[in-house]
Amino acid sequence: MPQPIDYAAASSAVRAVFDDIKATRKVADVNNFWKYLANDPATLKRTWESIKDVMAPGALDVLTKEMVYLAVSVSNGCGYCIASHGAAARKAGMSEAMFGELMAVVGMANETNRLVQGYRVPVDAAYEW
Amino acid sequence: MPQPIDYAAASSAVRAVFDDIKATRKVADVNNFWKYLANDPATLKRTWESIKDVMAPGALDVLTKEMVYLAVSVSNGCGYCIASHGAAARKAGMSEAMFGELMAVVGMANETNRLVQGYRVPVDAAYEW
Amino acid sequence: MPQPIDYAAASSAVRAVFDDIKATRKVADVNNFWKYLANDPATLKRTWESIKDVMAPGALDVLTKEMVYLAVSVSNGCGYCIASHGAAARKAGMSEAMFGELMAVVGMANETNRLVQGYRVPVDAAYEW
Amino acid sequence: MPQPIDYAAASSAVRAVFDDIKATRKVADVNNFWKYLANDPATLKRTWESIKDVMAPGALDVLTKEMVYLAVSVSNGCGYCIASHGAAARKAGMSEAMFGELMAVVGMANETNRLVQGYRVPVDAAYEW
Amino acid sequence: MPQPIDYAAASSAVRAVFDDIKATRKVADVNNFWKYLANDPATLKRTWESIKDVMAPGALDVLTKEMVYLAVSVSNGCGYCIASHGAAARKAGMSEAMFGELMAVVGMANETNRLVQGYRVPVDAAYEW
Amino acid sequence: MPQPIDYAAASSAVRAVFDDIKATRKVADVNNFWKYLANDPATLKRTWESIKDVMAPGALDVLTKEMVYLAVSVSNGCGYCIASHGAAARKAGMSEAMFGELMAVVGMANETNRLVQGYRVPVDAAYEW
Repeated sequence: MPQPIDYAAASSAVRAVFDDIKATRKVADVNNFWKYLANDPATLKRTWESIKDVMAPGALDVLTKEMVYLAVSVSNGCGYCIASHGAAARKAGMSEAMFGELMAVVGMANETNRLVQGYRVPVDAAYEW
Repeated sequence: MPQPIDYAAASSAVRAVFDDIKATRKVADVNNFWKYLANDPATLKRTWESIKDVMAPGALDVLTKEMVYLAVSVSNGCGYCIASHGAAARKAGMSEAMFGELMAVVGMANETNRLVQGYRVPVDAAYEW
Repeated sequence: MPQPIDYAAASSAVRAVFDDIKATRKVADVNNFWKYLANDPATLKRTWESIKDVMAPGALDVLTKEMVYLAVSVSNGCGYCIASHGAAARKAGMSEAMFGELMAVVGMANETNRLVQGYRVPVDAAYEW
Repeated sequence: MPQPIDYAAASSAVRAVFDDIKATRKVADVNNFWKYLANDPATLKRTWESIKDVMAPGALDVLTKEMVYLAVSVSNGCGYCIASHGAAARKAGMSEAMFGELMAVVGMANETNRLVQGYRVPVDAAYEW
Repeated sequence: MPQPIDYAAASSAVRAVFDDIKATRKVADVNNFWKYLANDPATLKRTWESIKDVMAPGALDVLTKEMVYLAVSVSNGCGYCIASHGAAARKAGMSEAMFGELMAVVGMANETNRLVQGYRVPVDAAYEW
Repeated sequence: MPQPIDYAAASSAVRAVFDDIKATRKVADVNNFWKYLANDPATLKRTWESIKDVMAPGALDVLTKEMVYLAVSVSNGCGYCIASHGAAARKAGMSEAMFGELMAVVGMANETNRLVQGYRVPVDAAYEW
């Protein structure tokens, strides 16, 4: 099974990505996700560049994006992702009250998604255009 | 299979819920989801009261909540929910640029959730407290 | 893409399975699922024999089994499976009141499953043995 | 990350919910799920009232409801939920033989749900009404 | 809701991506997925470049990659993806016998994934290193 | 909760399955999955016979089948299955470069599956036949 690759043991291609992550996020070290992905430098580089792009502020601010990332991770039951994006969302300004409401929305969405499918509800004409 | 129940054919208990939905949302008629749920008046009432509560503005505004609802529905592949909450999010102010970024975040979250699980990444000590 | 294989066009190996399905279920024709699986006679035979075994009355009666099958299919969002096992559950005695309660349980389970994961709830010692 | 809230440290609103859970279930303490949800008293109260309602005996008995809850939790891969609802189902009368058959049904449903989707099986006319 | 964007109506940035897709895949037109993604040119470009990279032959050949893509799409129940990657896998050499075996593996994996979770099976020491 | 059943404590029916697993796979002991399934001898026997059948070399070789099994297990987030089928795939010849590309494909498939659903992309006529 792949082992994490630390900066000291990393190739220069991997170090370049690690350096950019640390500079962009202003952190002292990269988190485990990147150390494991470093086993496949092409995927490491592509994934980091995509994440950097997608998570940059744009039409949506960083806090909203991190909360959406957390919501999807909760819905998929990915423990690591819930921990890391929970931390990122809090760093971006998510209060505990916001977290509570976020979880309530995620819970309701999962409940009603299944009710809709169980009752086989057809799409309303008003929603098609 | 359950058929939708229209206002005209509904019991007074169902009509009371339909009336509250229409008044709260300022719409002329309820959408199909509620007409199907009306087959089970207890679930109709409980679901509506929960949704009304959870989706009211609070620490998170309505637009953020609708975008999170949409993100979860997309991640679960619920076609009806994507159509109805896509419409609700747009009504609450989601621009097409915001939709595009939302989908990009949902896509990345689904991708990295699986990379994390495939590489069996352990949670960093920094994320535990 | 695979096309459905009707009895008239089926090989004798496929016909043998179709005959057993029709005799076991007392139906005039097999449903589409089996006609598509007939493209792969080994999977057709193995799946039918497994289903016949697993769905036979035992410690759980047929109605309970069909409702569990339906609950899982709803939770997975499989439209065909919801239609076919919804019909099978009704044939086995599921009333509309039972269906309503079943959907309510499926909805709550999906909601609380995600709340548990979002709050990262550790298993109570009382549940380990 | 939210920490569990014990009875001693809980607000009176949270204690009222904890008291009702303990009285309804005849248990000495609430399980971890509720102690974590207590971080958001509104969600705690709404979730408990919904669960109490939905899981009460009705057209379906408590054992059937707990087995369905367990089946969905297994299908969603929620470890905590499998442990807690596995315990609840056993307390409600699920024997190990029943558990074995339940898992067999859940397994088959997950298998055939995917076969149906992979073969793109269209819904039979007989299932539409 | 976003509408598909055809080549004739596309911006030059979108056309550049469409041209690369058509040249790389030797097709006369791009499929609907790209016409919808064209509503968000940044996501269109990033997704196409990622796909082109990831799906190129490397340690795994194109046929294996397309079958894995199809297997994941079936497991996620994405109808469009099953249709499009089913077609791509067949174009890359997947016979109907291979498709049958692929579906059988996907089905078994989904079945045993849930059995493992339901029985709460701990990882064997032999699998950790 | 079911406990694992070791060979020494197993019934002769369970031992017969364990013996066949050990002989077929040329291993000294069965892994935990089978020891837990042994609580339900009928499911143990049926699951083993299905797996033996489905995973035997045919139109697809064993390595491809194990990689597909791993891909589905990653997509479903089943930790045990990722560990055990990761080991099986490596034993069948999966190099770390192949693993890296496999994960990249699984990641992309999960990303684009959701983009497709979010944009509500209709199936192209060319994919229907």
